[in-house]
Amino acid sequence: MALAPPARPGDSVSAIDTPALVLDLDAFERNLDRMAKAVATTRIALRPHGKAHKCPEIAKAQIARGAIGICCQKVAEAEVFVDAGIADVLVTNEVVGAAKHARLAALARRARVAVLADDADNARAMGAAAVAAGVTLAVHVEVDVGQHRCGVAPGAPAVALARTIASTPGLRLAGIHAYHGGAQHLRTPQERRAAIAQATSLARETKAAIEAAGVPCPIVTGAGTGTWTNERDSGVYTELQPGSYVFMDADYGRNALSESDVAFEQSLFVLATVMSSPVRDRAVVDAGLKSFAFDSGPPLVRGRAGWVYDKASDEHGTIAVAADAAAPSLGERVWLVPGHCDPTVNLYDWIVGVRGDRVESLWSIAARGASG
Amino acid sequence: MALAPPARPGDSVSAIDTPALVLDLDAFERNLDRMAKAVATTRIALRPHGKAHKCPEIAKAQIARGAIGICCQKVAEAEVFVDAGIADVLVTNEVVGAAKHARLAALARRARVAVLADDADNARAMGAAAVAAGVTLAVHVEVDVGQHRCGVAPGAPAVALARTIASTPGLRLAGIHAYHGGAQHLRTPQERRAAIAQATSLARETKAAIEAAGVPCPIVTGAGTGTWTNERDSGVYTELQPGSYVFMDADYGRNALSESDVAFEQSLFVLATVMSSPVRDRAVVDAGLKSFAFDSGPPLVRGRAGWVYDKASDEHGTIAVAADAAAPSLGERVWLVPGHCDPTVNLYDWIVGVRGDRVESLWSIAARGASG
Repeated sequence: MALAPPARPGDSVSAIDTPALVLDLDAFERNLDRMAKAVATTRIALRPHGKAHKCPEIAKAQIARGAIGICCQKVAEAEVFVDAGIADVLVTNEVVGAAKHARLAALARRARVAVLADDADNARAMGAAAVAAGVTLAVHVEVDVGQHRCGVAPGAPAVALARTIASTPGLRLAGIHAYHGGAQHLRTPQERRAAIAQATSLARETKAAIEAAGVPCPIVTGAGTGTWTNERDSGVYTELQPGSYVFMDADYGRNALSESDVAFEQSLFVLATVMSSPVRDRAVVDAGLKSFAFDSGPPLVRGRAGWVYDKASDEHGTIAVAADAAAPSLGERVWLVPGHCDPTVNLYDWIVGVRGDRVESLWSIAARGASG
Repeated sequence: MALAPPARPGDSVSAIDTPALVLDLDAFERNLDRMAKAVATTRIALRPHGKAHKCPEIAKAQIARGAIGICCQKVAEAEVFVDAGIADVLVTNEVVGAAKHARLAALARRARVAVLADDADNARAMGAAAVAAGVTLAVHVEVDVGQHRCGVAPGAPAVALARTIASTPGLRLAGIHAYHGGAQHLRTPQERRAAIAQATSLARETKAAIEAAGVPCPIVTGAGTGTWTNERDSGVYTELQPGSYVFMDADYGRNALSESDVAFEQSLFVLATVMSSPVRDRAVVDAGLKSFAFDSGPPLVRGRAGWVYDKASDEHGTIAVAADAAAPSLGERVWLVPGHCDPTVNLYDWIVGVRGDRVESLWSIAARGASG
């Protein structure tokens, strides 16, 4: 029942069926290189987040440039990546329920698998599943360093959970997970720096308290595309998890950068077609609510001054065209920058890689929809 | 590469892997019956919109209860439905470009296929594709009756396009498409009635003007779940296109109904699991931006007073739990009502049909992602 891909390698870009998720391979590779270079001279491990791309080929490109493995959010994603040959996966999330515990433990027979915990009973249940499968699961205590989503409080509660994990058969304490998601989209470098300074301080104290309790806590993992230079330079974090840097999106584009930040390029686009233009100031494209996630606002129009994507319905995007802008023509192609890359990628089965005016690659977004 | 389904027929509901898209089959069938009954004694044809469900089994259930065929929005959707045996499909959209014209014409060799047009040159290009394929495409003039998206203006511009279509080899004028999408979510019955009265008046005049020009215009098609009783009773519309009525969603739930409206039940849910609850007033579920479309707001929590889904990230939903509400327990199931059903359904590969506490059916959302 798989849908036909929107293009084949060797096709001209003008032959791509729309809407399509298109990757500018030159920009993408420059992004990979920038990140690899920025961590190469440090002792920090890079473990990029696979939830952004859900694509084994991209994970392999990251590992080929020095990443130690990848992150993902769900057991089902981890299964897809391990099936595709990725040998080291951290599920940056709590996993609950006997069926998922058993799947996670089974996966640990085939790859290095780590997971988070923020609850002692659930950790013990994971341990039992690991024992039943004959494996040891590496577990990070998730510490709430500002995100206020999952995670135990820093300090004593984290120490108590670390001790539980360290003493539970089938589990091994790998370290702490200290990710501050809310800091990624603070707009100024000063705000982001202040938020990560606070997170770093909580992570440092928590790691020290765990080790003072006699439990080794080697790894401190976290960071995202908005803040990773701060965690890299913190002296506390040992592992970085940025994901969006390979693609970028309109929302990350709104972050102001400091001189010490690394600027990534927009490499990911949705290619759309004008399929109606009943009046001069309106272009309707074939990409709407089913072609973009709108949680971070509408897509931006690339390369058409005075064109603003201002309304979406299921399969239509309505673009307002300014009076002094180029008039739309039926059938013309429009390059759109997604508001938020992760959930937009999750709408597509294929990512079409282009170089210049040729389609070079067609990669399966194999973990699309793998939310279980 | 297909992902494993989240359940099997015969499973207990408590065994469904989450997040999952779940259909309450009793409520769904009552919705089908309500709509069938509401048009049975009229001369109006029901052609439900398949963009809501993208699921051939649901299309077949609609046709089994009297629908004359289905609507969809994209050629790729039409291909999926025709492949699955649906014999009569209206693409309620403009189709642009030689490749898509050829696909549409090829489809018309296997099924009754109709499409919209709002541009004379594009209509002529479709006609050439139809001639090349040896078929005649049925075409509706899309008339802008208030939506201000695609469509020609009512009156003279519609007449001119109708004449072009009627005189273009390979095309046949089927009628006019007069859908007022913006009216569907006006909150009061009075507002919706007024908007559709205006749309009806424009549709009536346009149809009369086309026929006065000597071109038969038998079909007037349109309407959605918010307004269809108005079009049904208009004396002008001959065909109704509601889609969401089979499922309903939080946004349609915000429409106030009059006594003459038909109330549909919420039959569609996302079943999620509490996978973290670090503090008493917060439950974090395993369904976020990749499990719901958020264009019409967050999902609603069903059956848990004082629980409000208030924040989403890619794979997390954060629920605020009121002080006097039941405290969350790790692993408990939460039933969530999507904000907007159509783009939410498009995130899933499977729809799990349940009756009572058993899984009865597992239907492929075969046209998921079929946006081309």
